[in-house]
Amino acid sequence: MDDRIERWNELAAQLGIDSIRSTTEAGSGHPTSSLSAAHLVAVLFADHLRTDLDDPKSPANDRFVLSKGHAAPVLYAALKAVGAIDDATMLTLRRFGSPIQGHPAPTPELPWVEAATGSLGQGPAIGLGMALAMRIDESPARVWVMLGDSEAAEGSVWEAFEAAAYHGVANLACVLDLNRLGQRGPTMHERDAGAFVARANAYGWHALSIDGHDVAAIDGAYREAAEQDRPTLIVANTVKGHGVSEVADKGGWHGKALPADMAERAIAELGGVRSITITPPKPEPWMPPAPVAPAGAAAPTYTEAIATRKAFGETLAWLAGERSDLVVLDGEVGNSTHTEDVEKVAPAHFIQMYIAEQAMIGAQTGLAALGKTVFSATFGAFLARAYDQIRMASIGRADLRLCGSHAGVSIGEDGPSQMALEDLAALRAINGSTVLYPADGTSTVHLVREMADQPGISYLRTTREATPVLYGEDEAFPIGGSKTVREGSDATLVGAGITLHESLKAADRLAEDGISARVIDCYSVKPIDAATLRVAASDTGLVVVVEDHRVEGGLGDAVRDALAGPDGVAARIVSLGVTEMPGSGSPEELRAWAGIDADAIVAAVRAARD
Amino acid sequence: MDDRIERWNELAAQLGIDSIRSTTEAGSGHPTSSLSAAHLVAVLFADHLRTDLDDPKSPANDRFVLSKGHAAPVLYAALKAVGAIDDATMLTLRRFGSPIQGHPAPTPELPWVEAATGSLGQGPAIGLGMALAMRIDESPARVWVMLGDSEAAEGSVWEAFEAAAYHGVANLACVLDLNRLGQRGPTMHERDAGAFVARANAYGWHALSIDGHDVAAIDGAYREAAEQDRPTLIVANTVKGHGVSEVADKGGWHGKALPADMAERAIAELGGVRSITITPPKPEPWMPPAPVAPAGAAAPTYTEAIATRKAFGETLAWLAGERSDLVVLDGEVGNSTHTEDVEKVAPAHFIQMYIAEQAMIGAQTGLAALGKTVFSATFGAFLARAYDQIRMASIGRADLRLCGSHAGVSIGEDGPSQMALEDLAALRAINGSTVLYPADGTSTVHLVREMADQPGISYLRTTREATPVLYGEDEAFPIGGSKTVREGSDATLVGAGITLHESLKAADRLAEDGISARVIDCYSVKPIDAATLRVAASDTGLVVVVEDHRVEGGLGDAVRDALAGPDGVAARIVSLGVTEMPGSGSPEELRAWAGIDADAIVAAVRAARD
Repeated sequence: MDDRIERWNELAAQLGIDSIRSTTEAGSGHPTSSLSAAHLVAVLFADHLRTDLDDPKSPANDRFVLSKGHAAPVLYAALKAVGAIDDATMLTLRRFGSPIQGHPAPTPELPWVEAATGSLGQGPAIGLGMALAMRIDESPARVWVMLGDSEAAEGSVWEAFEAAAYHGVANLACVLDLNRLGQRGPTMHERDAGAFVARANAYGWHALSIDGHDVAAIDGAYREAAEQDRPTLIVANTVKGHGVSEVADKGGWHGKALPADMAERAIAELGGVRSITITPPKPEPWMPPAPVAPAGAAAPTYTEAIATRKAFGETLAWLAGERSDLVVLDGEVGNSTHTEDVEKVAPAHFIQMYIAEQAMIGAQTGLAALGKTVFSATFGAFLARAYDQIRMASIGRADLRLCGSHAGVSIGEDGPSQMALEDLAALRAINGSTVLYPADGTSTVHLVREMADQPGISYLRTTREATPVLYGEDEAFPIGGSKTVREGSDATLVGAGITLHESLKAADRLAEDGISARVIDCYSVKPIDAATLRVAASDTGLVVVVEDHRVEGGLGDAVRDALAGPDGVAARIVSLGVTEMPGSGSPEELRAWAGIDADAIVAAVRAARD
Repeated sequence: MDDRIERWNELAAQLGIDSIRSTTEAGSGHPTSSLSAAHLVAVLFADHLRTDLDDPKSPANDRFVLSKGHAAPVLYAALKAVGAIDDATMLTLRRFGSPIQGHPAPTPELPWVEAATGSLGQGPAIGLGMALAMRIDESPARVWVMLGDSEAAEGSVWEAFEAAAYHGVANLACVLDLNRLGQRGPTMHERDAGAFVARANAYGWHALSIDGHDVAAIDGAYREAAEQDRPTLIVANTVKGHGVSEVADKGGWHGKALPADMAERAIAELGGVRSITITPPKPEPWMPPAPVAPAGAAAPTYTEAIATRKAFGETLAWLAGERSDLVVLDGEVGNSTHTEDVEKVAPAHFIQMYIAEQAMIGAQTGLAALGKTVFSATFGAFLARAYDQIRMASIGRADLRLCGSHAGVSIGEDGPSQMALEDLAALRAINGSTVLYPADGTSTVHLVREMADQPGISYLRTTREATPVLYGEDEAFPIGGSKTVREGSDATLVGAGITLHESLKAADRLAEDGISARVIDCYSVKPIDAATLRVAASDTGLVVVVEDHRVEGGLGDAVRDALAGPDGVAARIVSLGVTEMPGSGSPEELRAWAGIDADAIVAAVRAARD
């Protein structure tokens, strides 16, 4: 044991020293937040995090999520110690073009990092998702999440704790680095480890507190965590800047690199630069589950009016029989989003996350990191609750398939709190995202199938009301495409989802007046079919875009963007969308009030032609 | 006591009956979720919620926040019982144009509702804000928040509990209506009241559980809550659909109105329609604090380069001396956003919310509801964590003044997790919002002053780096305006914040080539100065918009929108913004990489003119 203790302490000193070296070299970063975690990370990487270095993506590997992402230097130092990166690469910390970023982000060069962190409080939910994926695959692997104490003020942490306890993921452990000091001063609880132990217990976790610089205690705690029948929280009392007397437990040293002379003294105090390499423990032997052959059933087809939300659920229920990697998450609204259709026919593919959108998206990110094809669904309005998680998932290059139901004022009587009116703007702004908005059952089926193979963040917006079927089952709906559902030469009406149907009604009325309106189904809001829109704008000279969404950031902005540019099309563009605060009412009343129904479209075309 | 018990029970029956009447009349709504809460609401409104009906906005009044907003019918029934609305108005539930919406929303006709609810889990933070406002005003009033059990899965609930315990708001009580059934089936904890009591205790709350249909127990619990030195959680065991045997404790009845025949039987079972009126208890006598005279100090002025985030903090610190109603909230990043400048000179105006953005925005909403002028600040990226709270605040007609610092790739080495790149899109899409983005210290001072008097959701985007001062202190910066900082005739460069400075550099270089570029400071992104932009587009024929933000939803979309419309200006519009995922790097490297620096602007102008 004495040998191991010395080895761990030596390794911890190296991790601390390397954190100082890389941050001082970079001229910025978080050495003190790394030093508090050095012993915790050293013992974990040396003897607990079972990893096949030759196969970093193996589902048999244990996973580590650094929720306190600003302590990235200590993670990179550990990756150097295990031989995953070399010292020179580690010293590119925070440099332009380096995968060794200021906060951990997965890149092709850094397969050891599987989730982006740095927006605090997101690690536990990601860890939960990973733990659930391991359970699905019957892998003996475990997940370790390292939390900071400042981030424990985020409700997302405890939302994930609740969900993890409910799902009984005994293969999840969180280590809370209680270093007392936040960015601007003492944390809320400072040294009160008991506050966190009591809370974790109240959520149904096993919990204990230890001296976070006592490597034997750390090793014992990690062993204890592995033996529980529930998730475990280890609260580790640590010192920010541990081992460096000039900064240890002192305020004013968050997120600051040590100047060169201080760094030199600090490294000397920690015993000098060393080059320990460690071999992490091997994963347990594990055989992947036998692949399940696709049922080969036909996808749903529709001839009668159906709500796109219902078609979404039925398509997923079908897809569950075709893809054994499919997982569907529900935010306790499965009878509204129709993920309940999956729960009914394929419960093994379904996970109930209750009303906890942040935990749902975080878990989805973790499941996706371990190779699952994951859809999640709630009301489009409530995805706003997890917008930061979606943003971080995009930084993490995660493939998230999101569905937001109950789009726009068309939900009717429930009122504005339940109306998705900002979702297109929010999701369009996500890097590399795909934003889809089908108008009928047939296109929904096709777009859900497309989403299942689409990388990055993809979003399907669905409608509460039933809408008529517009398309035959053999039509194709490629992402980035559109459908010209009616030809016309005097004006172009661009709709999506519910407003496509209003556009078609408007085109009928305009035809009675001798105005020939082309109608385009812009089911792919991002990427948008610029070529078709440009031809239509050029042909007709007038484009009226109609959306059940705020006028800012949604379909109207997307169409204007498609028509602008150095080679922009000279056409008048009229944008109809929601510009005031709705109340309750029937869908028809509210569309009329918002000025996005057929009457409003007809009026807009006439006014623009006058 | 017997008389009071009968009176409470009779009133509860009336509240249940009226909830059935209004929802059956509407044909939709949540009668069963109202019935579980009927006794809890009856006792509260009859004998605990101290309210001056003639002065609904008085700070001396107790406040009630219905966090489980779908139980709106029971709230409206209670408002009828106290005489705030009449029966006919109550029966307009969910009708178009009625203030009696499907979920509670404040409207001029309904001053009794002060916060929009219906996106679950937001009530406790709003209640915390109200409780803090009462403390500031030394009002003896109390806040009562009613939670559902499904929404207790939201981390935002416990984030607010944590903050409330930390701030020691003894004048806050939450009542958890534990009715066992969620929207789609049983809740996570079903009848386990102890789970919630233990948790609340772990957070430092006083907590107890009662029979939520035993009016004497309810009364006792409310009295107990009022006697504590800390916030109190009352877990009330209830029956969903209580008193109506056809639906009581049965699944499948969430969010469904009873058909007329069932409603008739239910009303009979509850004892028939009645018309009890109650007089709520009077508020305690209270004298508002003596007004503090403005210090009359001069606002900050700048001649040397300064970061707009720093100018923001200094302006707030000055404003604290001028406005006694000012409150500033920090998400534990006050040394980055510079709200620490307020903490230092005016601690009474400063509230530390730690890293808990949802609680911060919720508390801000509650403080604003009680008349405070409240600013909150964090990194712009982290406002995404509270996007749903911001959305709900806009529904609630709250005046929130938000500041997001560390805009764009220009933050540099910390990497994408800390970069606000979607904030303009998200905030532009909020109903009636104001989005401001100053480029120098002087304009920051003016815009912060404008925000202090601006209704609705206003957002100030600030920059990490110091930027040169462009304006003299006497210039005006009206919301909706812009500044033409350089005249030119060959092209228009539109920037804001950091990209204005890149645009100016580009204009210098273009001038060397004989290209005369007009440069516009679009400091007001929403509302945008369409008139000036249209003249510039018309004069120059080429508009290059440059933003340190995603190309979707931000300044580029706003400018295109301003130039489009039926009377659109025919100009080529080129949009430069962030289109890929950044990593770490220096601000200069990252602006060059994104194609938003002076070189990229020069290249774009040249390419467009070729």
